[in-house]
Amino acid sequence: MWCDLFVTNTAPIDLRSDTVTRPDEQMSAAMAAAEVGDDVLDHDPTMRALEERVAQLLGTAAALWVPSGTMGNLIALMLHLKRGDRFLAPRGAHVLNHELGSAAWLAGGMPEPLDWSAGPGRPTAEAVRAQLGGAAAYDMLHTTLLCLENTHNGAGGAVVPPDEHVMLAAAAREGGLKVHLDGARLWNASVALGVPPAALTVGVDTVQACLSKGLGAPVGSVVAGSEEFIGEARRVRKMLGGGVRQGGVLAAAGLVALDRLDALAEDHDNARALADGLTELGWDVTPPQTNIVLAAVPDVQLTLRRLQAIGVRAVPMSGQVRFVTHRDVSKTDIEEALRRIGGARL
Amino acid sequence: MWCDLFVTNTAPIDLRSDTVTRPDEQMSAAMAAAEVGDDVLDHDPTMRALEERVAQLLGTAAALWVPSGTMGNLIALMLHLKRGDRFLAPRGAHVLNHELGSAAWLAGGMPEPLDWSAGPGRPTAEAVRAQLGGAAAYDMLHTTLLCLENTHNGAGGAVVPPDEHVMLAAAAREGGLKVHLDGARLWNASVALGVPPAALTVGVDTVQACLSKGLGAPVGSVVAGSEEFIGEARRVRKMLGGGVRQGGVLAAAGLVALDRLDALAEDHDNARALADGLTELGWDVTPPQTNIVLAAVPDVQLTLRRLQAIGVRAVPMSGQVRFVTHRDVSKTDIEEALRRIGGARL
Amino acid sequence: MWCDLFVTNTAPIDLRSDTVTRPDEQMSAAMAAAEVGDDVLDHDPTMRALEERVAQLLGTAAALWVPSGTMGNLIALMLHLKRGDRFLAPRGAHVLNHELGSAAWLAGGMPEPLDWSAGPGRPTAEAVRAQLGGAAAYDMLHTTLLCLENTHNGAGGAVVPPDEHVMLAAAAREGGLKVHLDGARLWNASVALGVPPAALTVGVDTVQACLSKGLGAPVGSVVAGSEEFIGEARRVRKMLGGGVRQGGVLAAAGLVALDRLDALAEDHDNARALADGLTELGWDVTPPQTNIVLAAVPDVQLTLRRLQAIGVRAVPMSGQVRFVTHRDVSKTDIEEALRRIGGARL
Amino acid sequence: MWCDLFVTNTAPIDLRSDTVTRPDEQMSAAMAAAEVGDDVLDHDPTMRALEERVAQLLGTAAALWVPSGTMGNLIALMLHLKRGDRFLAPRGAHVLNHELGSAAWLAGGMPEPLDWSAGPGRPTAEAVRAQLGGAAAYDMLHTTLLCLENTHNGAGGAVVPPDEHVMLAAAAREGGLKVHLDGARLWNASVALGVPPAALTVGVDTVQACLSKGLGAPVGSVVAGSEEFIGEARRVRKMLGGGVRQGGVLAAAGLVALDRLDALAEDHDNARALADGLTELGWDVTPPQTNIVLAAVPDVQLTLRRLQAIGVRAVPMSGQVRFVTHRDVSKTDIEEALRRIGGARL
Repeated sequence: MWCDLFVTNTAPIDLRSDTVTRPDEQMSAAMAAAEVGDDVLDHDPTMRALEERVAQLLGTAAALWVPSGTMGNLIALMLHLKRGDRFLAPRGAHVLNHELGSAAWLAGGMPEPLDWSAGPGRPTAEAVRAQLGGAAAYDMLHTTLLCLENTHNGAGGAVVPPDEHVMLAAAAREGGLKVHLDGARLWNASVALGVPPAALTVGVDTVQACLSKGLGAPVGSVVAGSEEFIGEARRVRKMLGGGVRQGGVLAAAGLVALDRLDALAEDHDNARALADGLTELGWDVTPPQTNIVLAAVPDVQLTLRRLQAIGVRAVPMSGQVRFVTHRDVSKTDIEEALRRIGGARL
Repeated sequence: MWCDLFVTNTAPIDLRSDTVTRPDEQMSAAMAAAEVGDDVLDHDPTMRALEERVAQLLGTAAALWVPSGTMGNLIALMLHLKRGDRFLAPRGAHVLNHELGSAAWLAGGMPEPLDWSAGPGRPTAEAVRAQLGGAAAYDMLHTTLLCLENTHNGAGGAVVPPDEHVMLAAAAREGGLKVHLDGARLWNASVALGVPPAALTVGVDTVQACLSKGLGAPVGSVVAGSEEFIGEARRVRKMLGGGVRQGGVLAAAGLVALDRLDALAEDHDNARALADGLTELGWDVTPPQTNIVLAAVPDVQLTLRRLQAIGVRAVPMSGQVRFVTHRDVSKTDIEEALRRIGGARL
Repeated sequence: MWCDLFVTNTAPIDLRSDTVTRPDEQMSAAMAAAEVGDDVLDHDPTMRALEERVAQLLGTAAALWVPSGTMGNLIALMLHLKRGDRFLAPRGAHVLNHELGSAAWLAGGMPEPLDWSAGPGRPTAEAVRAQLGGAAAYDMLHTTLLCLENTHNGAGGAVVPPDEHVMLAAAAREGGLKVHLDGARLWNASVALGVPPAALTVGVDTVQACLSKGLGAPVGSVVAGSEEFIGEARRVRKMLGGGVRQGGVLAAAGLVALDRLDALAEDHDNARALADGLTELGWDVTPPQTNIVLAAVPDVQLTLRRLQAIGVRAVPMSGQVRFVTHRDVSKTDIEEALRRIGGARL
Repeated sequence: MWCDLFVTNTAPIDLRSDTVTRPDEQMSAAMAAAEVGDDVLDHDPTMRALEERVAQLLGTAAALWVPSGTMGNLIALMLHLKRGDRFLAPRGAHVLNHELGSAAWLAGGMPEPLDWSAGPGRPTAEAVRAQLGGAAAYDMLHTTLLCLENTHNGAGGAVVPPDEHVMLAAAAREGGLKVHLDGARLWNASVALGVPPAALTVGVDTVQACLSKGLGAPVGSVVAGSEEFIGEARRVRKMLGGGVRQGGVLAAAGLVALDRLDALAEDHDNARALADGLTELGWDVTPPQTNIVLAAVPDVQLTLRRLQAIGVRAVPMSGQVRFVTHRDVSKTDIEEALRRIGGARL
């Protein structure tokens, strides 16, 4: 069989996600040394330090650690949406496709996907405006929330530039909509665009950002917003079971991670190198904007199995093959991955 | 002001909806004479007769009266969907836009609108198939339900012919999806297509049909399906507050209404006459398939106010002006409406 | 078999519930003659008349017709409760035991039953106060609603007198709680106490009252409160599927029913006669305060079957046998029922 | 002011909860050395080892790590309850009072508290049986779940002995109820009773046990049950936002914690010493069964403030003052706490 011929003994190169990163020694040491408290009863001091630092980076009044980006988004949706409200999100957004329907089941919202008219993963402000004002009749849904995603995972890590972001948020605010930003990889957008993270949260009510993807912390995300929002969010986090005790051990890793924002540029360089190499090998690749490379292939599952067989791991995403570069994959690993793919004539 | 000049003293012609029909003498007499019981404690005999007759007409094992089509759809969604399931429905479907988000809030479903690739209000079986099989990963939503709508209100009362209906239901069943049919105006589709209602419910698990629209009953719809489904539906109806006592007074009206299916053909004739007349007057009208006429105008709210001023009532729908013909509007009324519109040079 | 020996051919006397009442000729005539409109699009004129009359009777700013008392209670709970709020209700209340858990599932409330320390169905103001102020910690539930029930069905139609009612409402308001009154049989309480209905709604935010029990309308209840509450309630009613079209046919029956408040005194007399007769026959009966008689028996299901066999119908309630008197049962019927029970030596 | 007079400079002795324990060096080292993976994409190897070990200890087929006991309980309730089901739990149970109403809001269950007829925190099997079989009528709630709690926090860490536990579970199973055990402190019950943990899960469908209380892990609990349950639980955990990436860092701490079950006996000894000492000082103390001491005082908040002033920390619980002993409080600390309390003549 085809697969058997090319099986290699070399270590697999894991390009499935930047979530596979492992804590390094510096991070482990920080976790072991963390000053901790009971974050449910009081407020764990390292947690507090992390939350204050993230709030500052994101330009919000306050922030709250959560076990995952999914919980951060869920808390925001639960607090922004009232029964039967409609919310807008770019087609293929994580909150639409990858959070098991919690937007409907737990937050009670009716999603309305927005097409990518402005570019990959990017709806237009006009599309937002076209959804406003429809609730004149009492039996019509109210549209009350716009969810943005920057970078947009399903669109291959595409960034929304600050000017477009501002226009989207402004259109939402004209219609009285709240704005939540799923910034799971906002740090990547910030580095790729060369602007501070807070430049990408202007006009936003709440934002969620992950510590456990490209930044390499083992566990955790942060949801940020006003003091009032964070007060309510703390209650909802407890309700969902996301309140933890000596969370400082994880927050310490998060603080180390936040020192590494600039290092994301290497992941972006590696993604470009991978995309260029694949293109040279004849693959149909979308030029990456950050650390995600999407490749269109005739049979996604078949290609994934062949890649696996030669020690290159990837996942399906938006009907294509997705490769993600990250801290635990070096320039040399990318070269080796390309060598394996070229050698196998995939 | 423009409006004042054209105000007429003549009775307005109400083309807002076929829901405005009033019970006539025969219906009132039937209501007064109805044998009734306590339908929550026992089973009201006239209710039972109505439910059996509708089940027979729709080709299902059983049926249950509900106060509105909205409740019929809601019960079906609550019973078909599990937490976080995704469901498919044609873009602009009543369950998506006109039921205040109960699909998400109360039934817990994530909607996915299907484009009208096969014609007005009609998605293709391919579009259904394209949504299947995506839940290989445990963190992906399961798509478990297809909601059809025949006729499709938002598409101007467009019908889905039996062959297309069958292909849609078959595509859903291939993927293990249940099928619910919002047949609020299924009777119109049946008359327009010249096929029995049961020909339009083939392959469907549940169906909702209204007695209070073109058929002219004052209150009520019916949801139909298997015996097991109806048993559960009775519980959910009670939970929602839709269990009523001497419902036989309403069921009696429903039984009279069901004798009038053929009369819907006159409404369809009248709709065509209205559309033809409007076209002659230079309006941009979609040729009607049943009893709904959609007209594209530059400013919907302005046109509605002008129509109101000359004694012709209509409503906005899908960004156009919607006229609906019904039992309480005669051929002469349509001619008068056209005369008023022509006279006012609207 | 025992049952066979005593089977009678005489018409059964139906004491299962006052919901079994059938519309009489006057009511049917009113229904046939009702001026109607589309209550979803506009506002049906007879509906409006009914709602205004009930609002006046109950001393509220506004009111809204609903298909059932269950829906009236549900709408109130959905609007009063926020996620995870706790609400208080007398043990055995209808909202706790007979509404299929909608308080939790659809309204999201955690119930806390209050014991009957002040008498049958009557909690004390102290018990209300004891539940307040417990939410100092952010991880504790907030108690935000007190649900009263007058008369209390599960306690055999027991009334809450105005002075106790006021103390309960006052205790709730001290703690910032809203107060909802399930007044399914508030008319009975009013007649039994000799005070106007509005005397029993003092201090209440919302109240639900039924037209279909002792008053004899075939279908319908009313929920009442502030203009703002009713505006929201109209939306929630539509979401639940309780918006109906030519509801005036039912409202007309309701208006007739409201002319019959005083006639409830006869039902109360009949209930006392039944209780007295049963006591003479050696039954263990709680003296009735309104139209409900509870009898303690060793084996409820056995007694119900024996009663059924001799043409007397009753139901189980709170572990006892419940008899309810109503418009369609005369003094003579009660005497006949007692004769049958005495004859069968039950 | 009173408080000022007794303020001490000595380190406070924290008896608020066993959740305040901090990871020690051995645990930190284990966390730093943990082999980790991406537990959402694959299965983190240390997580897997922890889950297998807990499943074995609890006598279940499988287990799943969750960020908190609250999430473990919530997942179980979400999977056991269907819309509007009723569930039984001992009065004062954590799922009733300390999880922010998620049982209603997110799991859709109507709680029914069971009185402590068999002893502190212990309902009788008869009380369970009395709640069964009530759903003969279709409009009645179904009771489908019994939630037990061992040890019972609100009852001062009271244990349910195996024979009573078995009778409770058997009564539930007779009525077709599922059984969930909130075993946040099941390890304490096991040690206090001298039986293995699995002896306290007999007849149970699902069980939740904490690693972060007396055992001293910084974060995490485990929910356990059948393979099928755990498969579903993994989906619900993801939906709630409890899926984490390199969770092995936390699981490693959990594995160390599980080696320390026997050490809980010291906490129990210390609790007895504290109770004895307080009793000698004239306090009204319930004799502790595990690591929790409840003391009845005239004014709980006042006493807590006075204790705080002398460097002894406690919390309110069930209207009393609760002291909890744990790994980070030694016998000497207890003696010092008693000295301070005696000295202040509290």
